[in-house]
Amino acid sequence: MTRKQLVEQIHLKESFLCVGLDSDINRIPKHLLSTADPIFEFNKAIIDATKDHCIAYKPNIAFYESLGSKGWDSLGKTIDYIPNTHFTIADAKRGDIGNTSRQYAKTFFETFAFDSITVAPYMGIDSVSPFLEYDDKWVILLALTSNKGSNDFQHHGNEPLFETVIKRSQDWGSPSNLMYVIGATHPESFVRIRELAPDHFYLVPGVGAQGGSVSAVCNYGTNKDIGLLINSSRGIIFSSEGQDFAEAAAESAKQLHFQMKEQF
Amino acid sequence: MTRKQLVEQIHLKESFLCVGLDSDINRIPKHLLSTADPIFEFNKAIIDATKDHCIAYKPNIAFYESLGSKGWDSLGKTIDYIPNTHFTIADAKRGDIGNTSRQYAKTFFETFAFDSITVAPYMGIDSVSPFLEYDDKWVILLALTSNKGSNDFQHHGNEPLFETVIKRSQDWGSPSNLMYVIGATHPESFVRIRELAPDHFYLVPGVGAQGGSVSAVCNYGTNKDIGLLINSSRGIIFSSEGQDFAEAAAESAKQLHFQMKEQF
Repeated sequence: MTRKQLVEQIHLKESFLCVGLDSDINRIPKHLLSTADPIFEFNKAIIDATKDHCIAYKPNIAFYESLGSKGWDSLGKTIDYIPNTHFTIADAKRGDIGNTSRQYAKTFFETFAFDSITVAPYMGIDSVSPFLEYDDKWVILLALTSNKGSNDFQHHGNEPLFETVIKRSQDWGSPSNLMYVIGATHPESFVRIRELAPDHFYLVPGVGAQGGSVSAVCNYGTNKDIGLLINSSRGIIFSSEGQDFAEAAAESAKQLHFQMKEQF
Repeated sequence: MTRKQLVEQIHLKESFLCVGLDSDINRIPKHLLSTADPIFEFNKAIIDATKDHCIAYKPNIAFYESLGSKGWDSLGKTIDYIPNTHFTIADAKRGDIGNTSRQYAKTFFETFAFDSITVAPYMGIDSVSPFLEYDDKWVILLALTSNKGSNDFQHHGNEPLFETVIKRSQDWGSPSNLMYVIGATHPESFVRIRELAPDHFYLVPGVGAQGGSVSAVCNYGTNKDIGLLINSSRGIIFSSEGQDFAEAAAESAKQLHFQMKEQF
């Protein structure tokens, strides 16, 4: 998906919500477990229920991988089922030497037709650039993450490491194929980060279960194209454990969508 | 596998060679492509041919993942086939928030019974600690990698980032469940790193195709338990493209084994 198409979808829906498909086999409603592919049945119902409120889906690859080859089948069916109006993110946090990152790019951009993948920056340019060689595909690079451990290394140095990551990586990609992960748990940091990368989109996790707020992120983080994809995973998909899980997920997505409409 | 068992195997064989199973479907001998599972057939022959020369195997997960669910089947058969005398490394470079790293740990320590996994440190303590909760399983944390991009961020700060990673992570694990990735392309750095982590094992990639040398690494990097697992992937497994690929791999492994014997 191109940046133009993404921005069009955002304005069409007045939403910049991403639904995280962290579809944990131990947390999906019990009545689905007797179906042939419980994870896919769950995702299908969640997608049907939320697609009018969101513009992106983000399967968290760990939850598929942990089921072995069956999980990868569920992932393939899920990515095929997501409407092509929606931006897709493989939340995989990959990154390795060039010849290996090239294989990861093949996995997520060819074997599975994702629009984007999250990538860890630690190994530098040759771990990131193979993903940027694809037309209309995106890297979403970890910068300042939402978790407790973000304090361990991401602020290292006189110039905090996450700032160096944002500065240097702008030589590798452009605002049309490179986004950054910026956690919602650091809303005050968005001011400085917008100075460093005014035009880029940010994928913002950490709203909901991790404690971040949509309005705080929007106050500091939007740009002329909105420039944010705010993700909620558990806060949407596990809104109910019962037969009504899809309706409950739709309601949670609708509430976030409602908060986002104020930005238009 | 415990540290005691690993050190015993190293002394028994007089080897600290790890064979990297970067089993690229586009590079394995053509005559295997007509078999039901070419990647597993290739790995099986490589394991049979090299097991007397090495003490560890390291499947590079990217090359399995890129084949979708079939690749994960090949990986499962491979890990089951590796003799339990050999230490196994999932070269996966994972790392995410706690609840997600917990899923990755489940994948590689339960769904597949690896002894260890490579982990990227960028996201800090909660991205690493779920892997350390398993008895007799290991984290191999990226510190100073072998690739060109290691210069981008790993030296960031007055105290280079890789040194901070090595120092801080020693509060998270011990020399009995935590190793570091230190590239063979920086042999002079081993002196300083041994001051910081004298007792830990290091997984050393970058010998062979990437240009590092076994003797330079051993000069600076060994400790009283040897303390090194030196990896070679392409330099061993793709020694020949013909019918004789397994014999050629054995010969390449034997040459590295011969260089290692001098350390005993």
